[in-house]
Amino acid sequence: MTTRADGRTDDELRPITFTRGFTSHPAGSVLVEFGQTRVMCTASVTEGVPPWRRGSGLGWLTAEYAMLPSSTHERSRRESVKGKIGGRTHEISRLVGRSLRACIDLAALGENTIAIDCDVLQADGGTRTAAITGAYVALADAVTWLGAAERLKDPQPLSCMIAAVSVGVVDGRVRLDLPYEEDSRAEVDMNVVATDAGTLVEVQGTGEGATFPRATLDKLLDVAMLGTEQLFAAQREVLAQPYPGELPGSKQ
Amino acid sequence: MTTRADGRTDDELRPITFTRGFTSHPAGSVLVEFGQTRVMCTASVTEGVPPWRRGSGLGWLTAEYAMLPSSTHERSRRESVKGKIGGRTHEISRLVGRSLRACIDLAALGENTIAIDCDVLQADGGTRTAAITGAYVALADAVTWLGAAERLKDPQPLSCMIAAVSVGVVDGRVRLDLPYEEDSRAEVDMNVVATDAGTLVEVQGTGEGATFPRATLDKLLDVAMLGTEQLFAAQREVLAQPYPGELPGSKQ
Amino acid sequence: MTTRADGRTDDELRPITFTRGFTSHPAGSVLVEFGQTRVMCTASVTEGVPPWRRGSGLGWLTAEYAMLPSSTHERSRRESVKGKIGGRTHEISRLVGRSLRACIDLAALGENTIAIDCDVLQADGGTRTAAITGAYVALADAVTWLGAAERLKDPQPLSCMIAAVSVGVVDGRVRLDLPYEEDSRAEVDMNVVATDAGTLVEVQGTGEGATFPRATLDKLLDVAMLGTEQLFAAQREVLAQPYPGELPGSKQ
Amino acid sequence: MTTRADGRTDDELRPITFTRGFTSHPAGSVLVEFGQTRVMCTASVTEGVPPWRRGSGLGWLTAEYAMLPSSTHERSRRESVKGKIGGRTHEISRLVGRSLRACIDLAALGENTIAIDCDVLQADGGTRTAAITGAYVALADAVTWLGAAERLKDPQPLSCMIAAVSVGVVDGRVRLDLPYEEDSRAEVDMNVVATDAGTLVEVQGTGEGATFPRATLDKLLDVAMLGTEQLFAAQREVLAQPYPGELPGSKQ
Amino acid sequence: MTTRADGRTDDELRPITFTRGFTSHPAGSVLVEFGQTRVMCTASVTEGVPPWRRGSGLGWLTAEYAMLPSSTHERSRRESVKGKIGGRTHEISRLVGRSLRACIDLAALGENTIAIDCDVLQADGGTRTAAITGAYVALADAVTWLGAAERLKDPQPLSCMIAAVSVGVVDGRVRLDLPYEEDSRAEVDMNVVATDAGTLVEVQGTGEGATFPRATLDKLLDVAMLGTEQLFAAQREVLAQPYPGELPGSKQ
Amino acid sequence: MTTRADGRTDDELRPITFTRGFTSHPAGSVLVEFGQTRVMCTASVTEGVPPWRRGSGLGWLTAEYAMLPSSTHERSRRESVKGKIGGRTHEISRLVGRSLRACIDLAALGENTIAIDCDVLQADGGTRTAAITGAYVALADAVTWLGAAERLKDPQPLSCMIAAVSVGVVDGRVRLDLPYEEDSRAEVDMNVVATDAGTLVEVQGTGEGATFPRATLDKLLDVAMLGTEQLFAAQREVLAQPYPGELPGSKQ
Repeated sequence: MTTRADGRTDDELRPITFTRGFTSHPAGSVLVEFGQTRVMCTASVTEGVPPWRRGSGLGWLTAEYAMLPSSTHERSRRESVKGKIGGRTHEISRLVGRSLRACIDLAALGENTIAIDCDVLQADGGTRTAAITGAYVALADAVTWLGAAERLKDPQPLSCMIAAVSVGVVDGRVRLDLPYEEDSRAEVDMNVVATDAGTLVEVQGTGEGATFPRATLDKLLDVAMLGTEQLFAAQREVLAQPYPGELPGSKQ
Repeated sequence: MTTRADGRTDDELRPITFTRGFTSHPAGSVLVEFGQTRVMCTASVTEGVPPWRRGSGLGWLTAEYAMLPSSTHERSRRESVKGKIGGRTHEISRLVGRSLRACIDLAALGENTIAIDCDVLQADGGTRTAAITGAYVALADAVTWLGAAERLKDPQPLSCMIAAVSVGVVDGRVRLDLPYEEDSRAEVDMNVVATDAGTLVEVQGTGEGATFPRATLDKLLDVAMLGTEQLFAAQREVLAQPYPGELPGSKQ
Repeated sequence: MTTRADGRTDDELRPITFTRGFTSHPAGSVLVEFGQTRVMCTASVTEGVPPWRRGSGLGWLTAEYAMLPSSTHERSRRESVKGKIGGRTHEISRLVGRSLRACIDLAALGENTIAIDCDVLQADGGTRTAAITGAYVALADAVTWLGAAERLKDPQPLSCMIAAVSVGVVDGRVRLDLPYEEDSRAEVDMNVVATDAGTLVEVQGTGEGATFPRATLDKLLDVAMLGTEQLFAAQREVLAQPYPGELPGSKQ
Repeated sequence: MTTRADGRTDDELRPITFTRGFTSHPAGSVLVEFGQTRVMCTASVTEGVPPWRRGSGLGWLTAEYAMLPSSTHERSRRESVKGKIGGRTHEISRLVGRSLRACIDLAALGENTIAIDCDVLQADGGTRTAAITGAYVALADAVTWLGAAERLKDPQPLSCMIAAVSVGVVDGRVRLDLPYEEDSRAEVDMNVVATDAGTLVEVQGTGEGATFPRATLDKLLDVAMLGTEQLFAAQREVLAQPYPGELPGSKQ
Repeated sequence: MTTRADGRTDDELRPITFTRGFTSHPAGSVLVEFGQTRVMCTASVTEGVPPWRRGSGLGWLTAEYAMLPSSTHERSRRESVKGKIGGRTHEISRLVGRSLRACIDLAALGENTIAIDCDVLQADGGTRTAAITGAYVALADAVTWLGAAERLKDPQPLSCMIAAVSVGVVDGRVRLDLPYEEDSRAEVDMNVVATDAGTLVEVQGTGEGATFPRATLDKLLDVAMLGTEQLFAAQREVLAQPYPGELPGSKQ
Repeated sequence: MTTRADGRTDDELRPITFTRGFTSHPAGSVLVEFGQTRVMCTASVTEGVPPWRRGSGLGWLTAEYAMLPSSTHERSRRESVKGKIGGRTHEISRLVGRSLRACIDLAALGENTIAIDCDVLQADGGTRTAAITGAYVALADAVTWLGAAERLKDPQPLSCMIAAVSVGVVDGRVRLDLPYEEDSRAEVDMNVVATDAGTLVEVQGTGEGATFPRATLDKLLDVAMLGTEQLFAAQREVLAQPYPGELPGSKQ
């Protein structure tokens, strides 16, 4: 039987860890690791919303994704130095924002903004899916913080959990959670964002210099949803621990 | 039975037209119309390839998508004036490029670059899928032109046809080829890029402020692939006509 | 006698056409053709004026000119991708705006802004003069639309018609309406913007690597004004047709 | 009889001075004053030409115009801080370059580039015409310097002199060399660039919120050419003095 | 005994001159010369303060430093054309602002902003220290102007004088006020900003490809403070003259 | 006796830790912590040098410093999104590069470039001094890596160690290694970069809205150099451990 370079079976995730309270200024701060991929995901709360939303009574959630220059195998150029954001960065920032907005009731937030930042410290494939999965945990912490600060209009603005995973066809086999070594030579590459209610938020599948039959799409989805099930379990477990810092209003 | 505002049935495309030779400087130039959506798609040939590809013997295909400021219902700001390209523009440009690279053998091109430009003259939903579908026709014309100019290494670099269509859930119903009026209130929105061999190139489905079960995904794909079948027929029909201009090497 | 490559006499315009209602979202939308030069000119109306003009009771008219990358003989780089607007683009945008502001009473507009967009679909010389001439027709339509919408303070804000034409010295002869083939080797190049009252709005004459006596300037102006006379006739004729769409307040 | 605020007659220039050798690093450096308008004009020589011109044996001349933030009546924002060059700056830079290229034989320069910089120290109307007039003197010095350095292919690359002046209609009268106070309320504004052979290089006339009959254009040109005659005399006089520094190859 | 190329002793300043009223639009305008280094320093007054300071009752002082392209030995590229400000420019602009804010009571200014512009006309080492020293004189004039206009809350907002000088180790010797020829090969380079009360505002010392013992630092400071003493004397002398223009409220 | 909020004495450093091998792609990767300030410092090696240095046989070292948006107490805007780098970022990037170039023999590097990246994960004062101190350790690891890869011309290109620390006057007392709470209200603020040979590389002292006597400068330096002594000890200790990864050429 073909094994993967890192010894995993085809439908096995890499080791997943979440470190809550990774930094202390933002209301939510999580270091998520999918194997060697490490992303610092933070959720910062600010009062007020963008101008086009003012007076609506609704909150807002925005997201930015970026890779540190030294996070990639070969150092990449810093986007602030180039003076422009690349298409890939833009695309993933939008995906993270859309994915997390699917689980939050913005009316319950009141006119507050939650800014999600996903900064990749080390990249080894699947950075966007790790970012979404980790950002959900940071978001949950920020919501807890807002609740403690009595700034929520509704005590439970989160309607479901969100996690994401990559799947792909490598060496002719459908595989889960691709590291860079597999991702860079995958024939088909798909990212799936799902909810713990078993529904889908976003599905993006691409043939990389190839095309794929619909049967492959089905198989990819099967494996992806097995993966997200395990991610939800991991998120639930880590969120069962208390908030990793001091909450507003708590005694000192 | 619920009918759509424009009288179509749920799985019916809008009227599709292709005008080849819409402008005369580029090797391929096509005005594609999906109902009121009109996109000018051109394929310009230049000698040489980007620096990182020089000496490889391989060609390259790149694509840019943009909306004219006056193409939208409310005039939008010109990106050149803003000095930056928005995330959506970036994302679609990358999608168009990836989609068309799936059908072309870049080795057969030799060290030539084909630059695809998709400029939206009028937007009424589905601009990215119209762009891909029209750009395929422009690309086919550019390949014909390159062949006549004896600049191809292999006489037939195109391995299949490419078309794209949008599908979505509107008013709880799965519908094909959404105009703006439906797109702006769709619960689920999906773009499918397919080949005439029945395989998939790209699938992007998004819940818009909602999530969707996998059964919906399946239904959306069923309808989308009915749509692309009709688009391939339309492309075939228009490409059966001769090249709409003078080819290199033809008598004058 | 020397004839021009396209068979015209020295003081003959290329075939001129205006297609009103070329697109349907803007209040005015005109495709203007000066021979092979084709420019899409639109006039979009928005409520309000720029901050520095608010509360003045006066309207504003602004203009942007741009060339599509594929409009030129060799594809040119997209300015939004470069992240800056070139000097030529800037210069022509300013010229179009100044020219059209000469015919409109901004007080009569009330605090509305008309944004003129001139996007060159195909360039074959004279794009700036075609743009001004076509934009006048789009502007006239936008004014009709504003009148129907009862948003004008004065029913007739247009005080005259505006048209523009290029003239130049080519092969030692003064010629009207230069196509690219002549323009690129002209010794003197001049653009004249005039009103149907026979007055001038803007005169820009340049020796291209040469200088010219004042007698030449006089001759160039003579020919240019013959040209604008014909352009006014063409504008009048096309504007004699009814507004090419549905006006606000009309029965449905 | 109406007199102008500064006591001049309608066809009188402001006091004109040229200070050659104003700074010492560039090959040509001239402070030009048209009354209160003061522009530092320099001509810097560098070996080589831009990439698109290499190997042609031809030289190049380029020009940049800019206003210091504190040069205007109200301080204006610095363009380097804004991160973009405004349309007006672009337009004038191009005009200065075109005007000076009309008098120089680029083949005689060999593959050297002359960079003209016109930096406005104090603005009081007519900055672009002062810039061109002063830059000609700086250019003449740079040519002398190149000759002394034995870097010219032909000893006399300048075929004529270049000067520029503004004219306009103010208070219904045709006036020469408008200061800011007149320029800001002129009905017609024209800039004329001419040669000492009596020919024209560039004519730019604009109705400012008004239009003008051709007879006015003629009168404006008459007055402008009287003005440039006097400017040529002033240039000749100042250039009759020796080069204001040390020339290459001179004894030390 | 080793002498310097320009004949000065090690602890001697270059000839220092201040020309007040160098231009006439800004409230303060000074041309400062440290030998061949020439900087135009202006202080422009505008009503109001930046948004983040509004309503505080406090004024603001901001500063921008820039080099004209032709000011350097070899022409340098214009930062507005590059579209970004270099690190060195940024750094010096911040230094000038910080230095001058040390001597002014912003509460006494009321809600007015003073914008300092230091534009280098000719660079020969020590441009930043000349800029600070000259800008102090321009600031003093602007304060006089504000006082005459009765816009100060407190008649004397300046608490001390500010001057700056460079020192360095060249050829193993501690030297004052380095020209370019020494600066470009200095082993240690230091800029000292001081007050006439003998205190320090800013000390920046750098080993250039070398490091230096603390004893050297002490010696550098000794020499620098001898230099600033002389600069204060020169500033005092020039400021003893009356305001070089017309003050608001003065009879006409 | 006055104690500091965090219980330290005036001349006591915060707890200092270095985590070598923090990430695995760069040749050197160190997480440095000065109390709550945490900076990820990496040293990435690339073949070749910038164009202006090619063929010189010399290597190059460049540095970039940046703060993650969520690293500050209040989230700050991402510089890549703003499209420009702020003055402070520029200034510190230059300081880090200059400081590290003081200890390395670029000739010994051969034509290789070392890119230092200092990304602040959490900011609590002293980020620039922590960055320099941590970057030295990353640089030492990169040099070890280059040696193992047999890419050094000289086996020991590092001539000394480099560390940096902040000092300031807070509450009228000279204090070492200021956290944000002290830094934000310091009367004088100084950063000192030193070598383990007891010499200075860079001294930057600033009065913050105040000025300071020379005696204070002396005291600040005394305390700073006590601080750097301890930092050198800590660096030595951590570098006594073996290289935290696999070196090129080592057995697998």
